[in-house]
Amino acid sequence: MSASIPPAICPPRRILMGPGPSDIPARVLAALGAPTVGHLDPYFLKVMDELQAMLRQVFRTQNSLTLAVSGTGSAGMETVVDNLIEPGDRMVVCVNGVFGGRMADVARRAGAEVTVLERPYGEVFDPAVIETALKSHQPKVLGIVNAETSTGAHQSVEEIAKLCHQHSALIAVDCVTSLGGMPVEVDAWGLDAVYSGTQKCLSCPPGLAPVTFSSRAVEALDRRTKKVQSWYLDMQMVKDYWGGSRAYHHTAPINMNFALHEALRQVLEEGLEARFARHQQNHLALKAGAEAMGLSYAGVDGHRLPMLNAIQIPDGLDDVIARKQLLNDYGIEIGGGLGPWKGKVWRVGLMGTASSAANVLLFLAALENCLISQGKQVPAGAGVAAANAVYRQN
Amino acid sequence: MSASIPPAICPPRRILMGPGPSDIPARVLAALGAPTVGHLDPYFLKVMDELQAMLRQVFRTQNSLTLAVSGTGSAGMETVVDNLIEPGDRMVVCVNGVFGGRMADVARRAGAEVTVLERPYGEVFDPAVIETALKSHQPKVLGIVNAETSTGAHQSVEEIAKLCHQHSALIAVDCVTSLGGMPVEVDAWGLDAVYSGTQKCLSCPPGLAPVTFSSRAVEALDRRTKKVQSWYLDMQMVKDYWGGSRAYHHTAPINMNFALHEALRQVLEEGLEARFARHQQNHLALKAGAEAMGLSYAGVDGHRLPMLNAIQIPDGLDDVIARKQLLNDYGIEIGGGLGPWKGKVWRVGLMGTASSAANVLLFLAALENCLISQGKQVPAGAGVAAANAVYRQN
Repeated sequence: MSASIPPAICPPRRILMGPGPSDIPARVLAALGAPTVGHLDPYFLKVMDELQAMLRQVFRTQNSLTLAVSGTGSAGMETVVDNLIEPGDRMVVCVNGVFGGRMADVARRAGAEVTVLERPYGEVFDPAVIETALKSHQPKVLGIVNAETSTGAHQSVEEIAKLCHQHSALIAVDCVTSLGGMPVEVDAWGLDAVYSGTQKCLSCPPGLAPVTFSSRAVEALDRRTKKVQSWYLDMQMVKDYWGGSRAYHHTAPINMNFALHEALRQVLEEGLEARFARHQQNHLALKAGAEAMGLSYAGVDGHRLPMLNAIQIPDGLDDVIARKQLLNDYGIEIGGGLGPWKGKVWRVGLMGTASSAANVLLFLAALENCLISQGKQVPAGAGVAAANAVYRQN
Repeated sequence: MSASIPPAICPPRRILMGPGPSDIPARVLAALGAPTVGHLDPYFLKVMDELQAMLRQVFRTQNSLTLAVSGTGSAGMETVVDNLIEPGDRMVVCVNGVFGGRMADVARRAGAEVTVLERPYGEVFDPAVIETALKSHQPKVLGIVNAETSTGAHQSVEEIAKLCHQHSALIAVDCVTSLGGMPVEVDAWGLDAVYSGTQKCLSCPPGLAPVTFSSRAVEALDRRTKKVQSWYLDMQMVKDYWGGSRAYHHTAPINMNFALHEALRQVLEEGLEARFARHQQNHLALKAGAEAMGLSYAGVDGHRLPMLNAIQIPDGLDDVIARKQLLNDYGIEIGGGLGPWKGKVWRVGLMGTASSAANVLLFLAALENCLISQGKQVPAGAGVAAANAVYRQN
């Protein structure tokens, strides 16, 4: 059998303005490609300590159990659910998009008795509704999505966390898309278990899932009577590798941790507040530009994420043709809609490094051409002009 | 709160001769650091197809369900077990080291009724013993480790696979350390579910787990009545992303897949037979050298892995001091013993790129000094001379 060998990797130049992965800075790619060392090498153990310290700063927490799970964001979700839930435990999951729905699925697979609270795509939950559910179901855990990547909805969780604690529930929060792009105050808000991903506002390639557990959550882990169903994601063992005894668990993805280390350095160099302000400004510029071109945002005013812009596709416009044109003619990747929003909404990411005036202006300019080439009437240059006006104001 | 930012990643130069990760070629690190693209980008979908085709060549299989799981080797183990097992299914697990023990733990967490067959560290299983167990327990799945990384034992699995099929059991095989360094004949041997890792003989950083499932195994997956307990590792969904419909499941670790692509290209360029011969020759040279220095191999003659050399630590020698000296004075990482072999055995890896005459000679020369500095009598230059004699013979 003679070997069939494809050509070497040579990716096209892309501008990643989808729902993630986002653009990766050259310095992060360089750290990713640094020479591999062993997973018990003293150098790597120091890198792990530094990673934990930086993750605590980004999560704004003192939580000891803060680390990067060796899988992508969905592995972070499964880590949080599988560790908090034992078979038969009650969990309330708030579903207003794909990722809330995924959390409910993961929870059922972990043996939870799941109660789903539902809101339509793009909408958010009223704390009063959640309080009613906490009273009637008395769950061990309430799961909620802070930043619903499928819709661009921003769910405030501070008040809900207080309600959870009043009703003796833990709150587990999906911050995959929000972390590093807008405030996520783990300690100040009293969040008990939070997971994220590296490929959104942290500007690191996909492959790791930052997680953090409060002392209340750790006590719940310690009280378990049954082993966590996932060996790979069992925090009781994983924390011994990240923590004091350095007991071998699995071989950590060394180079991915190098990349996250550099990505977090860059986040902290910029400063969280400056980073949040940048994300907000570019969102406002994109929104002004899109509206000047006659486009509308999906979702609800006052509850939109700056880093995930859900823009309604105009009637009669072919979603796939437009996205192909953006990709092939300009190298710009944006995301399509998911679930009921498939074909109806574009998801434009402005995450981490990709949240830049250059990306906003190029996207608006390119989109103008995509709309016109499908016969849409667009006031020439209006999108770019409106975005530039926002930048000049600030 | 002012940010605390550690210095940038700058790993020391290491020669990775432990149980993995092994040395990574520069071209693989370069592919790892190539610009990230989206997980649904047409370019990445092509990379996935090519990866699957190359993995099939390395696994020597036509199995359609052959892909890289988005986690390290232990996630591959959990993928195989969680997908094959439903709660209450019977599984026989052969345990002669850490990784067999891990498989039994994973299987119990998946709800299997587990029967453990045990052999002492370093020894292997007689097919007759396994046949008896198959007859008396009639398991759905038999799990066995082809290459026990904790002991260096090589378990033949071809005859055992036949026995499993005669008794209507599926055979799940751990080839984390063997794949790419010695024959793993998935189709010719009739293996049903096989997992590996990237960081051993494939010479890719840790972070992915190649897996392959036979048509018999796929039929078992299709017959499941209950969802796989892990959402992240559920092959029914993962295969739709790797296969025809390209349905979004999770965000693949793009850059890790780039690296594996380049690593597999290098494996196939060298050719599997040449690669196996190289691993065998360097093993023989290391063994000749070690024995000439008065050291003994652990384990059983005729059942040793070429890529994982378990060498007994001489009486009175301090394990940790010797390994520290190797690391600090020469940059050489080797592994310590695990479980009952802790402090008693060194695990010297000759995996992938790290399986080279240069590494063998340097290690023997450096080890001579480490032994002498702890007061051991070693015939000067004997290790290197014996290894060189092996190289000259071939």
